[in-house]
Amino acid sequence: MKKTLFIACFLLASVVGMQARVVTDSINSKVLGATVKFNVWLPWGFEQNTDATYPVLYLLHGFTDTYSAWVEKGRVDEIADELLGTGEISPMLIVMPNAGGPDTRNVWNGYFDMDGWAYETFFFTEFLPFVESKYRIVGDRQHRAVSGLSMGGGGSTVYAQRHPDMFSSCYAMSAWLDSGNEGIDPANKATYVMKAVGDHAAAAFVRNASDEQKAQLRTLRWFIDIGDDDFLLDQDLELYKEMRRARIPCELRVRNGGHTWEYWHVALRTSLPFASREFNK
Amino acid sequence: MKKTLFIACFLLASVVGMQARVVTDSINSKVLGATVKFNVWLPWGFEQNTDATYPVLYLLHGFTDTYSAWVEKGRVDEIADELLGTGEISPMLIVMPNAGGPDTRNVWNGYFDMDGWAYETFFFTEFLPFVESKYRIVGDRQHRAVSGLSMGGGGSTVYAQRHPDMFSSCYAMSAWLDSGNEGIDPANKATYVMKAVGDHAAAAFVRNASDEQKAQLRTLRWFIDIGDDDFLLDQDLELYKEMRRARIPCELRVRNGGHTWEYWHVALRTSLPFASREFNK
Amino acid sequence: MKKTLFIACFLLASVVGMQARVVTDSINSKVLGATVKFNVWLPWGFEQNTDATYPVLYLLHGFTDTYSAWVEKGRVDEIADELLGTGEISPMLIVMPNAGGPDTRNVWNGYFDMDGWAYETFFFTEFLPFVESKYRIVGDRQHRAVSGLSMGGGGSTVYAQRHPDMFSSCYAMSAWLDSGNEGIDPANKATYVMKAVGDHAAAAFVRNASDEQKAQLRTLRWFIDIGDDDFLLDQDLELYKEMRRARIPCELRVRNGGHTWEYWHVALRTSLPFASREFNK
Amino acid sequence: MKKTLFIACFLLASVVGMQARVVTDSINSKVLGATVKFNVWLPWGFEQNTDATYPVLYLLHGFTDTYSAWVEKGRVDEIADELLGTGEISPMLIVMPNAGGPDTRNVWNGYFDMDGWAYETFFFTEFLPFVESKYRIVGDRQHRAVSGLSMGGGGSTVYAQRHPDMFSSCYAMSAWLDSGNEGIDPANKATYVMKAVGDHAAAAFVRNASDEQKAQLRTLRWFIDIGDDDFLLDQDLELYKEMRRARIPCELRVRNGGHTWEYWHVALRTSLPFASREFNK
Repeated sequence: MKKTLFIACFLLASVVGMQARVVTDSINSKVLGATVKFNVWLPWGFEQNTDATYPVLYLLHGFTDTYSAWVEKGRVDEIADELLGTGEISPMLIVMPNAGGPDTRNVWNGYFDMDGWAYETFFFTEFLPFVESKYRIVGDRQHRAVSGLSMGGGGSTVYAQRHPDMFSSCYAMSAWLDSGNEGIDPANKATYVMKAVGDHAAAAFVRNASDEQKAQLRTLRWFIDIGDDDFLLDQDLELYKEMRRARIPCELRVRNGGHTWEYWHVALRTSLPFASREFNK
Repeated sequence: MKKTLFIACFLLASVVGMQARVVTDSINSKVLGATVKFNVWLPWGFEQNTDATYPVLYLLHGFTDTYSAWVEKGRVDEIADELLGTGEISPMLIVMPNAGGPDTRNVWNGYFDMDGWAYETFFFTEFLPFVESKYRIVGDRQHRAVSGLSMGGGGSTVYAQRHPDMFSSCYAMSAWLDSGNEGIDPANKATYVMKAVGDHAAAAFVRNASDEQKAQLRTLRWFIDIGDDDFLLDQDLELYKEMRRARIPCELRVRNGGHTWEYWHVALRTSLPFASREFNK
Repeated sequence: MKKTLFIACFLLASVVGMQARVVTDSINSKVLGATVKFNVWLPWGFEQNTDATYPVLYLLHGFTDTYSAWVEKGRVDEIADELLGTGEISPMLIVMPNAGGPDTRNVWNGYFDMDGWAYETFFFTEFLPFVESKYRIVGDRQHRAVSGLSMGGGGSTVYAQRHPDMFSSCYAMSAWLDSGNEGIDPANKATYVMKAVGDHAAAAFVRNASDEQKAQLRTLRWFIDIGDDDFLLDQDLELYKEMRRARIPCELRVRNGGHTWEYWHVALRTSLPFASREFNK
Repeated sequence: MKKTLFIACFLLASVVGMQARVVTDSINSKVLGATVKFNVWLPWGFEQNTDATYPVLYLLHGFTDTYSAWVEKGRVDEIADELLGTGEISPMLIVMPNAGGPDTRNVWNGYFDMDGWAYETFFFTEFLPFVESKYRIVGDRQHRAVSGLSMGGGGSTVYAQRHPDMFSSCYAMSAWLDSGNEGIDPANKATYVMKAVGDHAAAAFVRNASDEQKAQLRTLRWFIDIGDDDFLLDQDLELYKEMRRARIPCELRVRNGGHTWEYWHVALRTSLPFASREFNK
């Protein structure tokens, strides 16, 4: 009956966003001595095309957030669905691991190796191999990208700087790239990540890079995206200046906005196609 | 201490979206014999500038949704904050009344007068006067606009068609504008709204309008915004054709997408400045 | 000296647009009994990488224009340079053949076979083979696309409809797709093209297509882009409706504007990446 | 006859851009001892509404260009027409005076007072009064804005800095804001403008501004727009940093591109509405 059909259209339309394409999974990490949760966005056809392999984008969350933030606050699934529909991205997986939590004093935050929390070691030796074999990921450099926001923008940048043979592109949103020389307060885990960020200052890395390192950095595509009202703006502009001075091709965009989900939501529309284009080269 | 300041920046940034600028209120309607809830987005300074009056945009939700959808799913507050910050909109109020609910068989949905639910009468004789006096709204035609999505896009269009002296602009998103000649099933309230939509078909209204009516319709600014994958596309294009034939200036945009919140989220970036520009004329 | 360097930057910046990447060439056509000029935009590195082969986009001009319009009025070279720089397009050639002229009574206009001017035959049997061998073009379907504006939007659509094995995508801008049943006036060459357009009405083609033809049309990617003030809007919307009814995936965009170069200039930013993405699949 | 009508549509469409809304005029300057040409873009209805007065945007060209560049290379008339059509700008005049020429050694370039070429004095004491009375310009601060590209972006910024009581907004595109301490070579007029730009370094102006001056600068709206590949990027970012430090509200956008007309063409779509919004406050 036509009437029923019409109502069905509305109801269908309203649940489109709920299609179960995001899988929540976890890994028991020996390095960290903890279970780490992660979300994976799967493109249409992943379950059906059981022989297919896929490129992967690692998408990192920010300070005080968790693995679920990109889906719940950033709606990455809706954006990715739309971009896949128009062909602006090709089928790929988006993997979003946990590296934080809201309780900054008592919960570990951060993507770097810190005393008691060797996250970078975990990421490259445990997590990446696990997820890439379990989820039919191509697994070579050309089909692997990294992106993230704030603390995750810094994580992306540093991962790509230190492992340029592992990624074809890096897209940093509102990236936290430096924090001065902070001391450690054992009772406050936030001080560990602050120190680690300072120890991995991204602009200094480029400034001090050898010619060989610079040549390696030129083999990736880089993108820096930061709001004109962001309190981290100066850090990101400093990195861009160093990249330019070192003749490492890099895109820079300063759009309207601050350190907000609205900003990152829009950034996804550039970030995902940016990664996808490199996968297709 | 610098360390604390830095962490404070992150925490502050993360709560910006929670600033209590959206007020939930309600009105006891005699016409409907029910209490109707509504949200109001208040611009910065509303509480401080107690002598100021403001223009108003009525923003209508869709079928099976409620008054809270524009904030919870559409994030209208974040978009409005951003547009206010850049000056793309001037200070104004956004009023979002309830006209629906998820239980389509047993809950009234719709913006029109139906047997047992005279919502249009309620809107113009009870709700609008109540909200405009309580919230320091200018209260004239030039400073009043209407917009909405799906069933609310249809509601906006019909309100502006039937009350052209009340609004300076109308922006219809993915508007539900017709539904054929449906019969009523007293046990199913969804059939009432379907019949009402058919009785208020917007394209037919323009086609049958007198010269005088057309002249009145030309005094508003109209905007139709609909996705190329929307199941309502044909209806909206039909309205645009009639508007054009009747020489009633109207903007049309067909962007990528379907009947989704992602579509409406982006539409807000055009809809709010569109209304605001008329307020400033 | 720094002073001179600084001035040099300004002068250099001002001549960037003049970099000789657009080549004007011509072909002597036996089919037409005429010499046909064309422009080719060459990507950076074309001359250096003498072993490389490239995908190709055929970009068709409109009624009363000539082969030079896309460069002189549409600035396709500036847009293509920019998109190549950001990676939004991959290296490709853009070929712009002549099919018109300003004197509509006495000069042939049009992309179809007409009495005395068999342009479609010329295009597929003479021009395409000539240009694809001379300019190191890959030469298969996947690496060939067609696009155009107005009369060229119609030409693109009809070429892709009638030769679906030749192109991977078709992007029609403000396409002229129908003109009723016009008679021929031998003294007025404009009447020939009008009749030819009517004979190749694109919506009717889809409506009358066999299941096999529809299946073939589904192997291309289609895009229709037309302004809300364009006098050809109804034709283009009609084609989209037929495409949808026939379940042939197609994108539709209605943006602000009329039948203007400003519209087509912006359209290039979507059209070129659209073609390029298919080349990379 | 339908046939003729159809052809007429195409021909009409193709000449829309030629509608004579840009007037070329000139003024004999005593201050400069020269005749200075300028273009004025007039909105629809300017000739008809002979009692109306209009706000004005002064739009300044770059080094080695002349008064005609914004129309011939920047197509400001097409963009302005389009924005006026959608209501994104209100009716206003755009005035484009001459301050340069291609022969940099022998022709004066620049917006500042230099030995032998007191352009700033000319602009404020001769040109502005002349054009504002002749062209029915409102003539108060709120209805006057300034914008420009490269050398004209620097001119805009410095005019707004030194005459904050004269403009409601300033939009600087790819602005040339500093040039070190250059010496004068009397045989080379380019050295005069270089020195003048160094003498009017915009970031230093903000850095050295008194509290009172800063308060004045806060009464304007500022916008800096510069490409990520522009050789002037560092200068513009430096100005933004100083504005931020001085708590003078300012928008910053870094978009893709270099020192090109393609960049400025797109910038107009933001610049014109930015100025217009202030006119309407």
